[in-house]
Amino acid sequence: MRGVGAALGRARTMTAMSEPTPLAATGVLDAVRFDGEGLVPAVVQEAATGQVLMVAWMTEATLRRSLAEGRTVFWSRSRQEEWRKGDTSGDRQWIREAWLDCDGDTVLLVVDQDGRGACHTGSHSCFSRVLAGPAASAPTS
Amino acid sequence: MRGVGAALGRARTMTAMSEPTPLAATGVLDAVRFDGEGLVPAVVQEAATGQVLMVAWMTEATLRRSLAEGRTVFWSRSRQEEWRKGDTSGDRQWIREAWLDCDGDTVLLVVDQDGRGACHTGSHSCFSRVLAGPAASAPTS
Repeated sequence: MRGVGAALGRARTMTAMSEPTPLAATGVLDAVRFDGEGLVPAVVQEAATGQVLMVAWMTEATLRRSLAEGRTVFWSRSRQEEWRKGDTSGDRQWIREAWLDCDGDTVLLVVDQDGRGACHTGSHSCFSRVLAGPAASAPTS
Repeated sequence: MRGVGAALGRARTMTAMSEPTPLAATGVLDAVRFDGEGLVPAVVQEAATGQVLMVAWMTEATLRRSLAEGRTVFWSRSRQEEWRKGDTSGDRQWIREAWLDCDGDTVLLVVDQDGRGACHTGSHSCFSRVLAGPAASAPTS
């Protein structure tokens, strides 16, 4: 299996390191297609568990800053400002791998999650509300 | 661990079933916040592997149709039409769980992937290009 599955396989064998590791960007960075507002969505997935933690938006500047610092920096659409994840909450995300999809309009970041989790509600993942499915009867709080 | 991690734990113990299972929507469906174009991004994750396969867009109608049919139906922004994943390629996605994030503007669908994979390029995941990181030297084709 190629791509992220292989990446997760590798990541699962690693010891999580809660420290920054600047990443070397590849030429693929030039293939990122930002939307009309200059933004690209970034899916954040936990390396150790495979859990999808959150989706947020990046400008070209925050994407480059994220890779250079080895931790996630987003663009807040509501506040219209940069937002370095965890500066206030302590819940930082250390980037271990960064992937671009086939049409270049979505980024996938595989991270080690610091602190209590990714979500401001206290949940480990922002995806904690059941929309439908067999799990619909499970408690979600 | 709550949320999708728990979901994946359950999903990994299931035998993949390549057949439709209509899903029961919860009241959470009313909390989905569609953007100015009436769209919400949907992250598609494989139940058996945890691999993030793709991100695509849904209207309220295609989200409801996806849940009712138990398979993914997206909105093509380029073609401006509904697109039921796999009708042409055979690479259908059967939805096992559906989650909404904390601010209601992103959906996560946990699926069984039919056929060769999610990507029109032939890759199992659409995220097959390395943007940066330790895997940068690995072949990506």
